[in-house]
Amino acid sequence: MTENIKVIIWGFGAMGSGMADMLLKKQGVEIVGVCDRNEARIGKDMYEVLEMDRGDREPVIITSDINDLAKENFADVALLATDSFTKGAFDKIKLMLENKMNVISTAEEMAYPQAQEPELAKELDKIAKENSVTVLGTGINPGFVLDYLVLALTGTCETVDHISASRVNDLSPFGHAVMEEQGVGLSKEDFEEGVKNGKVAGHVGFPESIHMVADGIGWNVEKIDETREPIMSNTDRKTKYTEVKAGNVAGCKQCGYGYIDGNLKIDMEHPQQILPETEGIDTGDYINIKGTPNINMSIKPEIPGGIGTIAMCINMIPHVLNAGAGLKTMIDLPVPRAIMGDMRDMLD
Amino acid sequence: MTENIKVIIWGFGAMGSGMADMLLKKQGVEIVGVCDRNEARIGKDMYEVLEMDRGDREPVIITSDINDLAKENFADVALLATDSFTKGAFDKIKLMLENKMNVISTAEEMAYPQAQEPELAKELDKIAKENSVTVLGTGINPGFVLDYLVLALTGTCETVDHISASRVNDLSPFGHAVMEEQGVGLSKEDFEEGVKNGKVAGHVGFPESIHMVADGIGWNVEKIDETREPIMSNTDRKTKYTEVKAGNVAGCKQCGYGYIDGNLKIDMEHPQQILPETEGIDTGDYINIKGTPNINMSIKPEIPGGIGTIAMCINMIPHVLNAGAGLKTMIDLPVPRAIMGDMRDMLD
Repeated sequence: MTENIKVIIWGFGAMGSGMADMLLKKQGVEIVGVCDRNEARIGKDMYEVLEMDRGDREPVIITSDINDLAKENFADVALLATDSFTKGAFDKIKLMLENKMNVISTAEEMAYPQAQEPELAKELDKIAKENSVTVLGTGINPGFVLDYLVLALTGTCETVDHISASRVNDLSPFGHAVMEEQGVGLSKEDFEEGVKNGKVAGHVGFPESIHMVADGIGWNVEKIDETREPIMSNTDRKTKYTEVKAGNVAGCKQCGYGYIDGNLKIDMEHPQQILPETEGIDTGDYINIKGTPNINMSIKPEIPGGIGTIAMCINMIPHVLNAGAGLKTMIDLPVPRAIMGDMRDMLD
Repeated sequence: MTENIKVIIWGFGAMGSGMADMLLKKQGVEIVGVCDRNEARIGKDMYEVLEMDRGDREPVIITSDINDLAKENFADVALLATDSFTKGAFDKIKLMLENKMNVISTAEEMAYPQAQEPELAKELDKIAKENSVTVLGTGINPGFVLDYLVLALTGTCETVDHISASRVNDLSPFGHAVMEEQGVGLSKEDFEEGVKNGKVAGHVGFPESIHMVADGIGWNVEKIDETREPIMSNTDRKTKYTEVKAGNVAGCKQCGYGYIDGNLKIDMEHPQQILPETEGIDTGDYINIKGTPNINMSIKPEIPGGIGTIAMCINMIPHVLNAGAGLKTMIDLPVPRAIMGDMRDMLD
């Protein structure tokens, strides 16, 4: 048998540590380095942070200095769970690529960097090719529900006239950072102010999903609009992390609209709130294609965001290792799928 | 702009003529030859058979002699809609491959010939590689609903414990041949006799779908069982093509079971009958994954079989042209998707 697939994880928050946890249950793969900036974790053994028995495995001491890991061929693949935006992730990805390591990024914009950062996308493609490695951005959304899965369903269509897709989820499991990003608990006025000044950032990824779908089927996107509206609560709601009074904001309803040839052809909705069931809202993922034929898909409840993103990143490792050099997107690679056997068996 | 993608269609029944119809609405692709064995069509212009205005296009005279078309590089891709079984399709595929043409086959077993014809699959892979071309089998099912789509959903899973998938459809639009294959209108005794002697063949494709899913996620299939049971009608039912008396068979409920490590891990159901709504049955495609996380997907009504198969074959053309040489399955290629622009734009 060949050697294990070697993995670095950069960023050891909820996503990064979740990826470590999942990887440690898989065969044919090992974690050879972790970099994180959180003081509480630096210098500790990864297994200790994960509250997991190390067994007879070597300790993996979490470093704050990426130069400890950024060495040529130190790993086969680096998982980057550090950023949401391509600009922020760019230098980190570049460093890994230049050290001949393949990269999988959780940065939402990296799911389709061609959408908002075409120059950086070209640059990453060039760097990856120069170093004979591959870079992919993925996650549950963007990366799967509102783009890849939409595209897959259109594969059964002769023509597509209009696409509506919606991801309705529950923010209750999430902590303070997410509550702030989504404006949970604010008054209507503060929410609207937050949208203006960028504090209520909402979901990152609509332009990426819309472009991925449109480019995928051969539609030229002329314009994308996005809106963020408060979901006002009629009831008092309370989670482990936050409280919302009736009349205040329970979450953010975000919409994205893609125009093709002067017509609205793609609309996407992503209403996120705490405890949606208190007002009779069913969570789920919904895709509605008007075309030949029409297709109405629903997944109830929605595929959970945290584990979904972690799984997508891990499950794409063999596809990234098999791929040709350059910047790839989910459009370019074979179907993502769970890995229940030895990961090395999926290598070409 | 480069030349149009050139296509041959072999077999001009419902599937083959449907593919022609769809292709003629697409940009960047043209039909350069049709072969069929139906006397009523031989020697006629394809456009006449399709009842379509030829415009300024060259006539395409339907030939019964494949040697008229089996010439080196006569087309970029040959669409074969002639068979259900790999054994029957083999010589036809071989002939096309040896003439340096890529092949897409609607034969159900060809969606994953490794399942039941591993030797023929190896042989096709070898021939395709020797001739630097690609062969793919696809369709709505097998090829998409009960395999590709299942796999795609597992891509969001850390682990998969059990997979149930079901395709519930309405046979009412289909004609006599399908009614016979599915045993519609028979008495219970005649149906059971038909299952034994092979006249009630039912759905072809469960071993292919089960193997594709299992191999895709790294499960080793030990055993596959299949059952075919009559769906007894409690009411009189009547379609354009057939009649079923209460107490007789309205259709065939077919099940497939995949065993992994001694356990039933994959079960698939495909009940097909005429007018299911007369007894309150909703048609649809359903996928239920038990794992981390659980996923419950439904598509209601089901993706229609005819147009779905036609679209899958056409939409995979650019992926097949882009692929490396050899036998490929849906597992190997990028996501199928509708082609709304020029097909040539999807070529690498």
